[in-house]
Formats: sequence, C-alpha cells, structure tokens
Amino acid sequence: MTIKLIGFNASPNTLRVLYVLKELEIPYEYEVPSNFAHIKSPEFLKMNPFGRVPVLIDGDFTIYESRPICHYLIREYHGKYNSTLLIPSDIRKASLVGQYLSTETCDYTIPVGKIVMQEVISRLYGGSPDPEKVKEARVEVEKVLDIYEKILEGKDYLVGEFSFADISHCPGSYLAAVKGGHKDLWDARPNVKRWIENLFARDAWKKTLEETGNN
Amino acid sequence: MTIKLIGFNASPNTLRVLYVLKELEIPYEYEVPSNFAHIKSPEFLKMNPFGRVPVLIDGDFTIYESRPICHYLIREYHGKYNSTLLIPSDIRKASLVGQYLSTETCDYTIPVGKIVMQEVISRLYGGSPDPEKVKEARVEVEKVLDIYEKILEGKDYLVGEFSFADISHCPGSYLAAVKGGHKDLWDARPNVKRWIENLFARDAWKKTLEETGNN
Repeated sequence: MTIKLIGFNASPNTLRVLYVLKELEIPYEYEVPSNFAHIKSPEFLKMNPFGRVPVLIDGDFTIYESRPICHYLIREYHGKYNSTLLIPSDIRKASLVGQYLSTETCDYTIPVGKIVMQEVISRLYGGSPDPEKVKEARVEVEKVLDIYEKILEGKDYLVGEFSFADISHCPGSYLAAVKGGHKDLWDARPNVKRWIENLFARDAWKKTLEETGNN
Repeated sequence: MTIKLIGFNASPNTLRVLYVLKELEIPYEYEVPSNFAHIKSPEFLKMNPFGRVPVLIDGDFTIYESRPICHYLIREYHGKYNSTLLIPSDIRKASLVGQYLSTETCDYTIPVGKIVMQEVISRLYGGSPDPEKVKEARVEVEKVLDIYEKILEGKDYLVGEFSFADISHCPGSYLAAVKGGHKDLWDARPNVKRWIENLFARDAWKKTLEETGNN
C-alpha cells in the first residue's frame, strides 16, 4: 500500500517530510486538502486532533507532527529504496542529531518562522509584511545564526556528516532567506552560508520545491 | 566514570532528565552552578553554545537539550541497571512516543510554561505574577488540555503503556499545577487528571522533587 502524505505546499513542516521522502526515494502519494476548513473537520480531527498538516498514513498506521513522521520514515524505510543514512547508527552521533533537532525546533525555527510569517504567509493571504515585526525577527535570527556560525566552524554539516538534523533546518531557512528575501543574514556568516547552500543544492530539495511550486 | 548532569533545581528541563535518570536507576552526579553568570562563561559555552542547562557529560561525550539527553540515556543505558523500558522497541510505537514529545514541546509546554513563569519563576526573583498574563495562559492551557482529554480517552498513558512521552509532560505540569496552584485545570478533565496523577505518584518523580527541593 502506498504511503500517503497530507500537507500544504506553503507549509515548512510539509516540505520537511517531502525532503526526507525524496532523499530516501520512498514512493508516496501527496494530497493537498482543497481548503483550510477540511483540516478542522471531524474526519480530519480523527487523524490529528490538533487539526494540522502534515499527516502521514502508512497502511493502518497514522502519524502526525513532521519531525516524528520523518523519524518514522527513516527508521522504517532505511535501506529499502537506497542506502542514504539520515540518522547515524552510532548512539552518540544519533543523539547529537536529536540535540540539533531540538535547537532547530526551539531556537532556530521560531525566529526564522516569524520572517516566513511576515514575508511569505501574510502575502499568500493578500496582506503585507509589518516592517517593525520583520526588523524584530531579523534581530532574533541574527542572534541564533551567530551561534550556528560557531557550531559549524570547521564542518560542513551539524554532526559532521549530512543528516536529518540538517534537513530539518532547510524549509524555514529557504522560505525566509530565498522566498522571503532575507538571504543576506545567512550570507553574512561564512560557515552558515556554506552549510545552507549545500542543503539548498541537493537534488531531493530541488525536487521538493518543484513538486510544491516553491521553485 | 560517573555521568554528570549540570542543571538548576527550578528548571523543568533539568527535572525531566533527573526523572529519567531515576526511572532507569542510572548512577549520576548532579551539579548546580553556583550562579547564573556561570552558564554564560566561556568555559560553559564550550559545552553548550546556547548557555543553558541541562548539560550531560558522560566520559568524553557531552550533550545538551533535555529531550535528546533523555533519548541518549534511554538508548545507551536501557537494561543496564533495571528493565524499565521508556521507549518501546516497536518502530510504530516508538514513533508515536516521538509524536507526543513533539506536541509536548510545541503545544503543551509553551502555554503551561507561561503559568510556570508567572507563578513560580517570577516569585523566585522576588517578583509577583501578572494576573492578566496568568489569565491568558490559563485560556491557552485549557485549549490544549481539551485536546489531551480526547487523546487520553480509554487509556492511562499517551501510547497506551508508560513511556518517555508521559515523563516529558510531567515537570511543566507539576510546576504549573501543584507549585503554581492551577491544578483545577487538570482536575476538571477526568482523563487528564488520571494520567497526570499517575505520573506525579511515581517513585522516580517523588525522588526527583526531593533531590531538587521541589517537594
């Protein structure tokens, strides 16, 4: 039975799952709800009581929340369609992937998401960015990028080798930097710039942007 | 070599790691920095560039961020000191533990933490809670507890059996409900009340409160 992913094209969390599906070359069906009301319907809430995308359905198994969906795919399908390893088998290295997923969730994506909200999401709904909020978000993003600049000193990827920790930072960064027009923040820091450009250059990411009309 | 945990007694993230250490009966040394300036010192920033507790040191391995620290302990020390299983071996069940850890991080602990900030942390610094902020936080907590009430229908724990997903919800809940005086929100929902009281009643949690002077 084919895996089904339900998501929205403008959702960074949906893009995260698509990136992983494509890195692992897992066959899947992608369904975009026809309207926002659908994800608050009783039928949808049975799958995800929080009424949000993405949701992944694999036969009789349903899971929501993008990062655990990715973990599930990595564990369940590792080695099935190709040999890409997104979480190292070594416990310590795998734990550091978790460490950087935690800073991505709690430190990186929150301020980066504020830029996305202003520059990308608000425009989708016919609004325009609030310059004051953009300015505040940029200050917050600068602070976290300064820390990442140190973390990435002397390495191309967060745990040394390419992993799910890097992938997870990509969707928000792309929407804020490229679609949102704030790439100067990433470009100003050589380690961060090298890292994020490597992520943006991957085939799986390019195909994700193509499938969702974000290219 | 003994595992060393660096943390603060009032930090819910530190309490999360202590709860796991005690459930797994792992021997450890607990160090409380003598002052807040220490965690911003160059020496500490080498361990955690974000300048925060908890940090765990296990021989030549250092890891920060409470949830990944717990994952590390669970994977590395499972079965070593007792037979407690905090993440099921089945991939699907383990993925659902991840799903509820994600809702804990992004949906549950953010509003619950606002009550903790007002009622517990502000008092620690000689301040007093802002009634308007407490009121707003209660509304947000009610919304998320309504969803948990449905999730917990017909089961005692989030994935059926007791797991790290439950543990992770405990510190914030305890500080907001018991120390902060807002237990009425949890008590008003029978499934949530049964769940959280089971968590508060565990020996490992009671010992965690005792060690940190939170009892």
